[in-house]
Amino acid sequence: MAENVLVVHGGGPTAVINASLYGVIEEARASGKIGCVYGAIGGSEAILKERFLDLMKYPREKLRLLLATPSTAIGSSRYALEADDYKAMVGIFQKHQIKYVLFNGGNGTMDTCGKVYEACKGAGIFVVGIPKTIDNDIAITDHTPGFASAARYMAETTAEVGMDVKGLPIHVCVMEAMGRNAGWITAASALARKKPGDAPHLIYLPERPFHEEEFLEDVKKLYEEKGGVVVVVSEGLKDEEGKPIVPPIFTSGRSVYYGDVSAYLANLVIRKLGVKARSEKPGICGRASVALQSPVDREEAVLAGREALRAAMGGQSGVMVGFIRDEAADSPYRMQIRMIPIKEVMLYERILPEEYINQRGNDVTEAFVKWCRPLIGERTWEYMDFQELYEQENNGANNREDVPE
Amino acid sequence: MAENVLVVHGGGPTAVINASLYGVIEEARASGKIGCVYGAIGGSEAILKERFLDLMKYPREKLRLLLATPSTAIGSSRYALEADDYKAMVGIFQKHQIKYVLFNGGNGTMDTCGKVYEACKGAGIFVVGIPKTIDNDIAITDHTPGFASAARYMAETTAEVGMDVKGLPIHVCVMEAMGRNAGWITAASALARKKPGDAPHLIYLPERPFHEEEFLEDVKKLYEEKGGVVVVVSEGLKDEEGKPIVPPIFTSGRSVYYGDVSAYLANLVIRKLGVKARSEKPGICGRASVALQSPVDREEAVLAGREALRAAMGGQSGVMVGFIRDEAADSPYRMQIRMIPIKEVMLYERILPEEYINQRGNDVTEAFVKWCRPLIGERTWEYMDFQELYEQENNGANNREDVPE
Repeated sequence: MAENVLVVHGGGPTAVINASLYGVIEEARASGKIGCVYGAIGGSEAILKERFLDLMKYPREKLRLLLATPSTAIGSSRYALEADDYKAMVGIFQKHQIKYVLFNGGNGTMDTCGKVYEACKGAGIFVVGIPKTIDNDIAITDHTPGFASAARYMAETTAEVGMDVKGLPIHVCVMEAMGRNAGWITAASALARKKPGDAPHLIYLPERPFHEEEFLEDVKKLYEEKGGVVVVVSEGLKDEEGKPIVPPIFTSGRSVYYGDVSAYLANLVIRKLGVKARSEKPGICGRASVALQSPVDREEAVLAGREALRAAMGGQSGVMVGFIRDEAADSPYRMQIRMIPIKEVMLYERILPEEYINQRGNDVTEAFVKWCRPLIGERTWEYMDFQELYEQENNGANNREDVPE
Repeated sequence: MAENVLVVHGGGPTAVINASLYGVIEEARASGKIGCVYGAIGGSEAILKERFLDLMKYPREKLRLLLATPSTAIGSSRYALEADDYKAMVGIFQKHQIKYVLFNGGNGTMDTCGKVYEACKGAGIFVVGIPKTIDNDIAITDHTPGFASAARYMAETTAEVGMDVKGLPIHVCVMEAMGRNAGWITAASALARKKPGDAPHLIYLPERPFHEEEFLEDVKKLYEEKGGVVVVVSEGLKDEEGKPIVPPIFTSGRSVYYGDVSAYLANLVIRKLGVKARSEKPGICGRASVALQSPVDREEAVLAGREALRAAMGGQSGVMVGFIRDEAADSPYRMQIRMIPIKEVMLYERILPEEYINQRGNDVTEAFVKWCRPLIGERTWEYMDFQELYEQENNGANNREDVPE
């Protein structure tokens, strides 16, 4: 009897989710024991509709394109499964001789994965989770494939925007980062800095209550000093009472739609400080960018796919691939794979710990930078900055006066 | 007596303005006749303050970093010069033995360049303009260095966002492009398409009055068909009366601050159609991106720098480097350099001509795509799209039902 694999994607895409898919196919091929690797075309819902495509039949050079294909090549969904759906799935898996089911996704998908695992118990079907989220909010694992690329995008883009604002220092630029409850991506903007004083000049995270007065104070001081200021903010900033600082625009059923934090804060700066401000909100451009994928992330995503199938073929079920970092002091970056029971993963949403946030709540700490640095890979960008060289030659004196627009 | 060169940057940065600076330095070196190539550190204002740095003294391998340095390495300004300033400049040029003055910028900078040229007449100082603007709104020249990189950014990013939205088709995504009066960058998003039906699904340009009812009608139809819709809009959309569709937030002196068109339209879709919508506004991330520079643009920017100095050294003054495209039918892309009198350049702001906009005003024409294609360089991105392959195998039948969120 053939042994087939099914891969299902859940939730929002990342820059490397397809790299994990590639890893699964490569592992299946290497094992010599797998008939088909089916992709569920359109997420969990596609299982019920039996929308399966065998991916093994495509030539390897085509499959390698998965490493540089943004979003999810097989489609995803946010379809909410019902209790009956889980039972129905078992029959569908058996009909298609699917022995290994791999769910790739974030917290919501791991919940589904755990329920499918329960339904498949005793049916000889092995269910394993592959973690994926740009938000990095999955518990226990050191980090999650997809995060490091979103982090590198934020770091490199902030460095570029920082140069832009420094080149024509006439405004306050408020950049918005994804991650409504967890500030990991926002924090990663700090990796744009090569030396103190570089952009980003301020970082505001959703883990700390946001105070408008303090924000305006910080911005004003920096604007007077530099003329051009780069502020990075999380899309999910909340006030002292835990309410989003931007009121909802519209509520429809369970869904609430908020306005953009970056635009809100740029407007605040304009109105309260009377200086030019603009907002940049790359949004999903950031999670879809192939050019700024982190090579480390891509490699780890492939590995996560391979290890998931290997674990399932080894008889494991109800587990998720986790990354455990080698914590030995000053050792080079090294990851180990550990299978984590899905039930443990579901315990909590992982937010930025206190030791990664500075006291005033307007920056990250050196400990965060040290943790994050290896994930985004080598710093590949080096700029020629004659403004800086000029200041150095002239004894560091900044004799450029602020130019009113 | 030494013959020195001064390069001045004006206005907002582009991804390749430093490539033109590199071209000037390379040409100066090759000529064997130039003492120093000074950079004015901080735009026109820096001339008056004599903030000059000799760039020739840096090793060539360092200078090559200019090709991949975003923003302007010597700084820019929007300082408004007074009549007296032009006279003062002549003395400053003479004091520093500056015989060749090159202004790199857009329409505003070319105006300055023309005035400096008038002031320098008879003083043996030669003044030449290097065009630069992401907006592509400079007259006469076929296009402007800086535009093609902004265009490639918009095309490639729209393709990536298109894959993202297709992978999880649950919302309308409104992307905003820079260019308040001229729709060139917005239009360039069309180059994201590999085949009909690909994102962007709708394009709205500032050259045509924007009608909210038509927009909502177009979006509704596409949303019902696809579930995920990508709309690209110019930041400067105006209504039938020429008024910006987003009212000003704040006015301060000559400056008027508008809210974001993308956020405004996403809100409109949510409120009027009751479907999920979000806005993406990469903004200056787009003009600062080194990873998505167009190789053609970079090469032409270097050339523009070299040709500007060559023209000045050849005794030309009061001219700007222009690109004239070889128009022979079906010939491969080929550009010729022509020096354009600065006075002619100042005649008008170049907007997208009628033949590049479709009748309904919600897309560009094939003629635009044909014009723009060679500028962004080879299409380097190829995606593995199993959703598409699945649909093809299943007779093109789209049996995926819309999933309410």
